[in-house]
Amino acid sequence: MKLKVKAVAFDADDTLWINEDLFREAEKQFYLLMSPYAKEETAQKTLFETEVNNLPLYGYGIKAFVLSMIEAAIKLSNNQINPFILNQLLLTGKFMLQQPVKLMAGTLKTFKALTGKYKLIVATKGDLLDQERKLHQSGLTKYLHHIEIMSEKNIRGYKKLLERLDVKPTEFLMVGNSLKSDIIPVLKLGAKAVWIPYDLTWQYERVPKTKMPQGFIKLNKIEELLKLL
Amino acid sequence: MKLKVKAVAFDADDTLWINEDLFREAEKQFYLLMSPYAKEETAQKTLFETEVNNLPLYGYGIKAFVLSMIEAAIKLSNNQINPFILNQLLLTGKFMLQQPVKLMAGTLKTFKALTGKYKLIVATKGDLLDQERKLHQSGLTKYLHHIEIMSEKNIRGYKKLLERLDVKPTEFLMVGNSLKSDIIPVLKLGAKAVWIPYDLTWQYERVPKTKMPQGFIKLNKIEELLKLL
Repeated sequence: MKLKVKAVAFDADDTLWINEDLFREAEKQFYLLMSPYAKEETAQKTLFETEVNNLPLYGYGIKAFVLSMIEAAIKLSNNQINPFILNQLLLTGKFMLQQPVKLMAGTLKTFKALTGKYKLIVATKGDLLDQERKLHQSGLTKYLHHIEIMSEKNIRGYKKLLERLDVKPTEFLMVGNSLKSDIIPVLKLGAKAVWIPYDLTWQYERVPKTKMPQGFIKLNKIEELLKLL
Repeated sequence: MKLKVKAVAFDADDTLWINEDLFREAEKQFYLLMSPYAKEETAQKTLFETEVNNLPLYGYGIKAFVLSMIEAAIKLSNNQINPFILNQLLLTGKFMLQQPVKLMAGTLKTFKALTGKYKLIVATKGDLLDQERKLHQSGLTKYLHHIEIMSEKNIRGYKKLLERLDVKPTEFLMVGNSLKSDIIPVLKLGAKAVWIPYDLTWQYERVPKTKMPQGFIKLNKIEELLKLL
């Protein structure tokens, strides 16, 4: 089966490169630093709740994550936290912001094969500066027609992207690892979607089985796209 | 004198709406909270240095500012800060992120007069989500051809914007309050620039008299643009 589209948009974090692992490592360190004040389970619950509460104000990305870690640490310690630990959390964030980009296997091969045949796009959430840094480091920008850094990947956001690209929904394919952000809103617009799950998914992005969307294609690896295009 | 251009781009913070006042208020509160640990002068110096050091990693905007306040507070107190105060700094950031947009006098009148005659653009730095929120609240989006949220307003960033708009430098006018970000790089590209200074300018954006650029137009109010266009 071949897909007839003009534009192919890729999610970035955990689709083109590894990202979630970095957050998981930071969370583990957070639970350890919090262990004098709270059990891991409590620390995990409080951090997640703090992050989700802050999403409308802070959005996605590492800076938002660090601010939420600090807030959760103060809460978990009942204002008793050692400021030295909070400084550690700031350093964790700076460490994350400086990690080299690790491309998924097959990303470069896929981009090289598709360039010139399709409008290639990256459509991602997260910090503007950090995503630009990773894109620049990735070496992929020369293959890209357009980069869209979105504050939220919802129907409205994708609609704006399609208008900007001047392509119809049926001519648009989105490729990503998050059902919630990359697949569901895209299918609702009448566009096409390829889901490439990644081993790790942030709790907030998970979709219950009862809400599994219909009509997308599931692949295991990015380079399997080449059989469809 | 009339300017012959096709596209008019506006800086947002302190050009279309008031912004710097919010940071100044937050800084004053920071100095007060730090008064048990450091003199105002020392607090000011440490906060500014921390912000400038963090710019390459954090970029611009309120989240970056809050992270730098927390770092500076820990440093100024020699790790002795009361976590309650750090929580106050987090709340300051959340307060800032929720402030209603206050348009400069004449902004709406100017946009209404220019719409349809020029491609109107907003080109701004700062947090993606926060700038989108302010633009949405401002009621200006319906007049806009394009919104560019840039990680850094340098020659490279403006060059990319011009390519995206498909206009030549001579057909492009930038309007803003920062000589460093809105005027100097634009003039270097061979485009036109209008400087509308605002009462408050962040220390980092100030330009020494010896480096004052040549060849821009200075206005006192945004609606004076209508005499030029």
